[in-house]
Amino acid sequence: MSHKARHRDHVRRRLKRRAEPGAAPGSLTVDPQAPQPVIRLLAYNAEKFIERDIADPQELRNFVGHWHVCWVDVDGLGDAHILEQIAAIFHLHPLAMEDVVNVHQRAKVDTFGERTFIVTHMFGLTDHLASEQVSLFLGPDFLITFQERPGDCLDPVRERIRKQETRVREADAGYLAYAILDAVTDHYFPILEGYGERLEALEDRIIALPDRAVVAEIHDMKRELLYVRRAVWPQREALNMLVRDEIPHISAETRLYLRDCYDHCVRIIDLLETYREVCSDLMDLYLSSISNRMNEIMKVLTVISTIFLPITFIAGLYGMNFDPGASPLNMPELKWRYGYPFALGLMALSSIGLVLFYVRRGWIGKGSDDRRAPPSSRESP
Amino acid sequence: MSHKARHRDHVRRRLKRRAEPGAAPGSLTVDPQAPQPVIRLLAYNAEKFIERDIADPQELRNFVGHWHVCWVDVDGLGDAHILEQIAAIFHLHPLAMEDVVNVHQRAKVDTFGERTFIVTHMFGLTDHLASEQVSLFLGPDFLITFQERPGDCLDPVRERIRKQETRVREADAGYLAYAILDAVTDHYFPILEGYGERLEALEDRIIALPDRAVVAEIHDMKRELLYVRRAVWPQREALNMLVRDEIPHISAETRLYLRDCYDHCVRIIDLLETYREVCSDLMDLYLSSISNRMNEIMKVLTVISTIFLPITFIAGLYGMNFDPGASPLNMPELKWRYGYPFALGLMALSSIGLVLFYVRRGWIGKGSDDRRAPPSSRESP
Amino acid sequence: MSHKARHRDHVRRRLKRRAEPGAAPGSLTVDPQAPQPVIRLLAYNAEKFIERDIADPQELRNFVGHWHVCWVDVDGLGDAHILEQIAAIFHLHPLAMEDVVNVHQRAKVDTFGERTFIVTHMFGLTDHLASEQVSLFLGPDFLITFQERPGDCLDPVRERIRKQETRVREADAGYLAYAILDAVTDHYFPILEGYGERLEALEDRIIALPDRAVVAEIHDMKRELLYVRRAVWPQREALNMLVRDEIPHISAETRLYLRDCYDHCVRIIDLLETYREVCSDLMDLYLSSISNRMNEIMKVLTVISTIFLPITFIAGLYGMNFDPGASPLNMPELKWRYGYPFALGLMALSSIGLVLFYVRRGWIGKGSDDRRAPPSSRESP
Amino acid sequence: MSHKARHRDHVRRRLKRRAEPGAAPGSLTVDPQAPQPVIRLLAYNAEKFIERDIADPQELRNFVGHWHVCWVDVDGLGDAHILEQIAAIFHLHPLAMEDVVNVHQRAKVDTFGERTFIVTHMFGLTDHLASEQVSLFLGPDFLITFQERPGDCLDPVRERIRKQETRVREADAGYLAYAILDAVTDHYFPILEGYGERLEALEDRIIALPDRAVVAEIHDMKRELLYVRRAVWPQREALNMLVRDEIPHISAETRLYLRDCYDHCVRIIDLLETYREVCSDLMDLYLSSISNRMNEIMKVLTVISTIFLPITFIAGLYGMNFDPGASPLNMPELKWRYGYPFALGLMALSSIGLVLFYVRRGWIGKGSDDRRAPPSSRESP
Amino acid sequence: MSHKARHRDHVRRRLKRRAEPGAAPGSLTVDPQAPQPVIRLLAYNAEKFIERDIADPQELRNFVGHWHVCWVDVDGLGDAHILEQIAAIFHLHPLAMEDVVNVHQRAKVDTFGERTFIVTHMFGLTDHLASEQVSLFLGPDFLITFQERPGDCLDPVRERIRKQETRVREADAGYLAYAILDAVTDHYFPILEGYGERLEALEDRIIALPDRAVVAEIHDMKRELLYVRRAVWPQREALNMLVRDEIPHISAETRLYLRDCYDHCVRIIDLLETYREVCSDLMDLYLSSISNRMNEIMKVLTVISTIFLPITFIAGLYGMNFDPGASPLNMPELKWRYGYPFALGLMALSSIGLVLFYVRRGWIGKGSDDRRAPPSSRESP
Repeated sequence: MSHKARHRDHVRRRLKRRAEPGAAPGSLTVDPQAPQPVIRLLAYNAEKFIERDIADPQELRNFVGHWHVCWVDVDGLGDAHILEQIAAIFHLHPLAMEDVVNVHQRAKVDTFGERTFIVTHMFGLTDHLASEQVSLFLGPDFLITFQERPGDCLDPVRERIRKQETRVREADAGYLAYAILDAVTDHYFPILEGYGERLEALEDRIIALPDRAVVAEIHDMKRELLYVRRAVWPQREALNMLVRDEIPHISAETRLYLRDCYDHCVRIIDLLETYREVCSDLMDLYLSSISNRMNEIMKVLTVISTIFLPITFIAGLYGMNFDPGASPLNMPELKWRYGYPFALGLMALSSIGLVLFYVRRGWIGKGSDDRRAPPSSRESP
Repeated sequence: MSHKARHRDHVRRRLKRRAEPGAAPGSLTVDPQAPQPVIRLLAYNAEKFIERDIADPQELRNFVGHWHVCWVDVDGLGDAHILEQIAAIFHLHPLAMEDVVNVHQRAKVDTFGERTFIVTHMFGLTDHLASEQVSLFLGPDFLITFQERPGDCLDPVRERIRKQETRVREADAGYLAYAILDAVTDHYFPILEGYGERLEALEDRIIALPDRAVVAEIHDMKRELLYVRRAVWPQREALNMLVRDEIPHISAETRLYLRDCYDHCVRIIDLLETYREVCSDLMDLYLSSISNRMNEIMKVLTVISTIFLPITFIAGLYGMNFDPGASPLNMPELKWRYGYPFALGLMALSSIGLVLFYVRRGWIGKGSDDRRAPPSSRESP
Repeated sequence: MSHKARHRDHVRRRLKRRAEPGAAPGSLTVDPQAPQPVIRLLAYNAEKFIERDIADPQELRNFVGHWHVCWVDVDGLGDAHILEQIAAIFHLHPLAMEDVVNVHQRAKVDTFGERTFIVTHMFGLTDHLASEQVSLFLGPDFLITFQERPGDCLDPVRERIRKQETRVREADAGYLAYAILDAVTDHYFPILEGYGERLEALEDRIIALPDRAVVAEIHDMKRELLYVRRAVWPQREALNMLVRDEIPHISAETRLYLRDCYDHCVRIIDLLETYREVCSDLMDLYLSSISNRMNEIMKVLTVISTIFLPITFIAGLYGMNFDPGASPLNMPELKWRYGYPFALGLMALSSIGLVLFYVRRGWIGKGSDDRRAPPSSRESP
Repeated sequence: MSHKARHRDHVRRRLKRRAEPGAAPGSLTVDPQAPQPVIRLLAYNAEKFIERDIADPQELRNFVGHWHVCWVDVDGLGDAHILEQIAAIFHLHPLAMEDVVNVHQRAKVDTFGERTFIVTHMFGLTDHLASEQVSLFLGPDFLITFQERPGDCLDPVRERIRKQETRVREADAGYLAYAILDAVTDHYFPILEGYGERLEALEDRIIALPDRAVVAEIHDMKRELLYVRRAVWPQREALNMLVRDEIPHISAETRLYLRDCYDHCVRIIDLLETYREVCSDLMDLYLSSISNRMNEIMKVLTVISTIFLPITFIAGLYGMNFDPGASPLNMPELKWRYGYPFALGLMALSSIGLVLFYVRRGWIGKGSDDRRAPPSSRESP
Repeated sequence: MSHKARHRDHVRRRLKRRAEPGAAPGSLTVDPQAPQPVIRLLAYNAEKFIERDIADPQELRNFVGHWHVCWVDVDGLGDAHILEQIAAIFHLHPLAMEDVVNVHQRAKVDTFGERTFIVTHMFGLTDHLASEQVSLFLGPDFLITFQERPGDCLDPVRERIRKQETRVREADAGYLAYAILDAVTDHYFPILEGYGERLEALEDRIIALPDRAVVAEIHDMKRELLYVRRAVWPQREALNMLVRDEIPHISAETRLYLRDCYDHCVRIIDLLETYREVCSDLMDLYLSSISNRMNEIMKVLTVISTIFLPITFIAGLYGMNFDPGASPLNMPELKWRYGYPFALGLMALSSIGLVLFYVRRGWIGKGSDDRRAPPSSRESP
């Protein structure tokens, strides 16, 4: 159950607002448990690039304006002072900075004058489903990304920047923003593939032998899909806005690429909705299978009971006191040497036969195990 | 059950219209049980502020026009005369005043000439879920708020006004309106967090051992979520209107802040819809768990019945009248000194064993308690 | 069941079209069972008013044009000739007149040149839920209302006209149309409050002891809500059209009032949808309660059966033929003086105990009553 | 079951496309089983009219252009040559002609230059629910209608043309198109009334004594409503397009009439959706009634079983071997002259009593009939 | 189950993305298992046509520009080099080429300067439901189609090109694009007809004797319909865009034809949605039939049990120890010569009777077969 517990914990922690309701807007109330910010600079133009870890935000002033594109990547949101310094250097709006720190924003695109502020969500599947808010500020020659913690799915983008003569090296900051959004969006696919496989496994289990744990698993999966869906739907709107509207620093050429990214996002939503429908169908399949099993159980009970009740009555009626004197056919077993053991044997045979029958059907043994949580197939992968 | 009873009472009282159908529009029919109005004035500019309790509405004329912003806060709607005086001083439209008094309006933004009329709903979670209508009138240099009763969530806003050099002190009445709407909107979050926790607790209970009270609780929660939702959806439309349309006395700068507030409102709706879906899923989980338990009960019945029916028949068949003379194996127990107590002992053992088995499964004891309401986990918090 | 039967009859009668499919449009085919028209005139200006019953429609020519506003109220649609005369006097379009007579129109606003034609539905809750179509024709200085039968909810409006210095006396015919629409719309509230109370009563019944009649009542209520909803939704569209579009003889001031009326209509729809959802939730609650009861019944059966089956087998096994000679412990009861009565007494005790147990649970007595319809709580109010 | 079988057959036959996928568009592939076309001409102006059966399409050239309006009514689509001749005379677009022949089009309005092409669906309820595609071509002074087979609901329209001084005689071809669309639309009402009555009958049956056939009937009705709905929804769009857009040969006056027709169509959809919801509610009602019956059955089983099991055990315990010598109270029945017949009589009484009880409840007799289809109430009307 | 396994395999393989998330956009990462491209050229004008297999893409330069229309059909996507050569010759955008290779795109229409890029999906029903992405590039005088593998439904189009004086020979490349889209769209009809027939067969099976395999089959069908639906909905949007927007190289005349194709697509969606609703209805029908069977089973159990329990008790009560001396009526059977065989015979008769009864009802025999998958009716067609 630890997968689920950790996912829950993750969700709960992110839901909690840092600022009190009614606090002044734009106030940076930092989560004390958040990791300390680590700043990494990647500045490049078509000819060369530099990559540097920045200790003091003020250093950034040496680079911005001198390179074609500066990518300032901040991992960790644990120090209000550092964040405020960066905001001051790049003229980032306080309302946007508040959204950077309160990591539970819906994906969106807001423009504050010459700065475009983009919020997106990156999903990672380590031992539990966890999401991380990535906030982007796009300026004329810089891109600033704020992430909740170190570790991301943007290494392929960095790799492409390091190589010469790639499109990203020749393009502007808007294209870099696209490249990051595209990497984040495409990262949903492997997660959804994982769900697709789990759904198929579940379907096979339900058809083979549905146990109680199936319901809990469908329920968990529905919840997680709901969680992913809540992240993806606004992403689609945000991308659509980037494609349709005139957003500062997004060129027409980049818009063509964003349209491609938007298509991917729509496909993700398609898949998500399909999986949600499949979840519901599996629940129906499970319920009908439960009903079927009930029918089966009742049939066994009815068949055996109704066969034995009348004949037990007949046996009771005559008390089986037939007069052995009237005929040698009248209950000779009673006089047999092994009459009683024979009767006991018959009883043992009937009981063992039925117990074996029930064990084979999984009614005994499995049945009592049902109450304990089965080893969830979800724990290991 | 008192939580629910009080919530119901609250809803019913608010639903009841004061004015008869067909009454002239704009007539102020006051609820006689409503609290008497208490007027509090907060007037400020960038340099100083005053805070005063107003006994006679006519006093207000001394302040309005002399300060940068006047915030007139009226708590309690129990005196038509006082309300009409205020309406006369500030030129408030009778139709809007009628909506102030009939506290069951949907959140909305209406403009009456130079006055902007905003209705919103503030939720409080004391011992039961209660909502309060807050009506705002926005003029060029004043803001009037009408609340149903004393006590609100606006103290942080007042605190910010009392401090110097806060943004609210420097901004206009439109910004004050935003600050109040923001405080009201953000106040939904702790309430929703409470629901989130109750849902998690419910889920754990259903998976552990679902009892009958679970259904009633899911039902109550669905109802309350429906109630909150009915309040929030129009709030979103109203905020959207404030962001998009040209509303008098709302500056472009304030509109930027309102956009942020609108985002929060959308997130609240997201959460609400998610919780509603989780409620439905929990109901499904519960129902499938009931079906599973039924299956389990039927399996026990079927297994035990069908094992004992055939052997009881065999025992009945031979009447167990085996001839002890034919063989010493034929029912020697009947001649034992403690034969009868031995048989009685066997019976007692079998009965006690089964009773213990059922008690452990919760079929006996718990089963009969089901009919009484269990100590609801909702009462205490 | 008479409430329901009458409601059904009402619906069926209204559904039946008078004109054959394919008949020429605009033909006035009057329902022969409809009441004869009664014409009442209310003519007024700011200074005075007259109120008169009109026998011959031609009399109307003496008033129209001479008063600020003439309200011609026609109750009953049973005479094609009279209706045609009125249509001729006021130049009403034949298509609109056809809609007046075929009383099953959706609420709507149509303009025919200088005449505005408005259809709305008035609900009354006498002994059954009945609706009545009210058709309004609005001209420059007159308003004509056609109702299906005498008796309506417009008396408060008439009262306001009779008083001097009310707004309605000073305003134009468009304002009168608003006043009537507002009275009709507000009249939905008491009906919905009635449904709210029935729903609460049902919920209490389901939680206390759900009987079969609950389902039928939920079903009836759903149907009636569906019926009301079908009337209200188009009303909302119609009101919206009156607020938004440029409709002849509706002034900007009146539009402000109509916006208020539109808000009420939206609130009614809100309530309706909420009640419909509550209905569905109650059905779920009922079904889960049925399942719970089934579980309970099965548990009793299983517990008692499985306890007695094994011990009955043991008793049968030994035939209880223990040899009393072998020991005084072997079945001394058989030799007791009151052995047989003692056994019979035991049996009676066990039977009576169980019967009492079932009566207390409501399985006996109530159970057989279930098949008859219980005294519906809906009949009396 | 023949009603259903014929309806199915009807649907299947219409679904089958005549042209192969990939065939050139506009190719007239005629269904060989379709009836031969019968052409009927109705030409009229305000003064006179002629009505004529046309054998050779070329004859039509003598009329078109010489009369105010020519209505060419073609019943039967079984001869590609004739259809092509008509298309040539009136310049009908090949794509439209293809749609005429492939009688499974959605209702729609297409304009091909000066020709307006309208598709609608006419429903008839003979012994099964059957629909027929009616295709209209509207030109400046002619209207051509193509129907699948002879027999339609347009006779009232013809009747109105034959009478002088009717509006249709004075109006243009666009008005004739309206008259036909109106007749077709209004023809849905009696069909829907039929469904309304069937639904009420079903509801009564479910509340009285639900049998298995009810489900199949609800299912059939749902399917048929789905089928009607699939025909009506596009009709609404088509009518809306005729009302809103500038369509050639549809005058402003006619548009007013079409708005009325559109209102009727919306009402039909309202009714349809209501009936579909009622169907779902009836299914719920049925299912809850099944659950209730199950509860009832289980209660009877539980009450009787649990009463007799303990006392049977007690009887078994003592083997009823009480010593008659110890007391005259000890089982005197065993010595009665009619002891055995008395016991047999008791048994017979108990059995007959229970059998009667079950017959009265409909568990015996009816129960076994359930498996056969009951005489469907739908066959006869 | 192989049908399903293969369909699953097909879906899974197509879902897997070739390019890693974060890879540079427009990179052609070819699936190594994809078939090698086979290029076929069809060049034509109104007078003549040539048809040629192309080994080296560079050959294409000899044709393009010299013919009225060149149709380059590429079957198989297994060689990045060849695809890139084609892209270079016709100036196809890298982003579009990436979509050609990643065969899981939603149907869409994108314009890249003078090239129109169309994605559609072709369904084939061989032994399992398989879809194939068809990508079209439309230029001024050429059309390039990329298919996943050889074999398609476009032969009728080729046939029409080979014939002289067909419309396609005289029209431009846009019309050819339409012809292909139309063939692909119309190819959905036979597939849907197949589903319609399967649904009817299922309905008959459920009404006759529902077995467990029915649920699995409904579930499979729902899934496949979901799969087809996911392909068709975007197709509709794409076609709508082609009809409404100004797309390069699509003439007004062709737009008329595309409107027809769009209508077909809407009809396909209509059918799909209908089938999906029928699927849900069938599931309900099945579940209610399961409940009915449960009721029936319980009735049999209850009737037989409750009849025999009381009489068995009576038999047990008297132990049937009636004194034969008191009367000759007292249990004479016990003294009969064949008393015991008679009793055994009675028992055998009762047992065999019940077993036959259950076999006839399908509770024995069929019942145990339920657990194995029945020979699916879907395998063979």
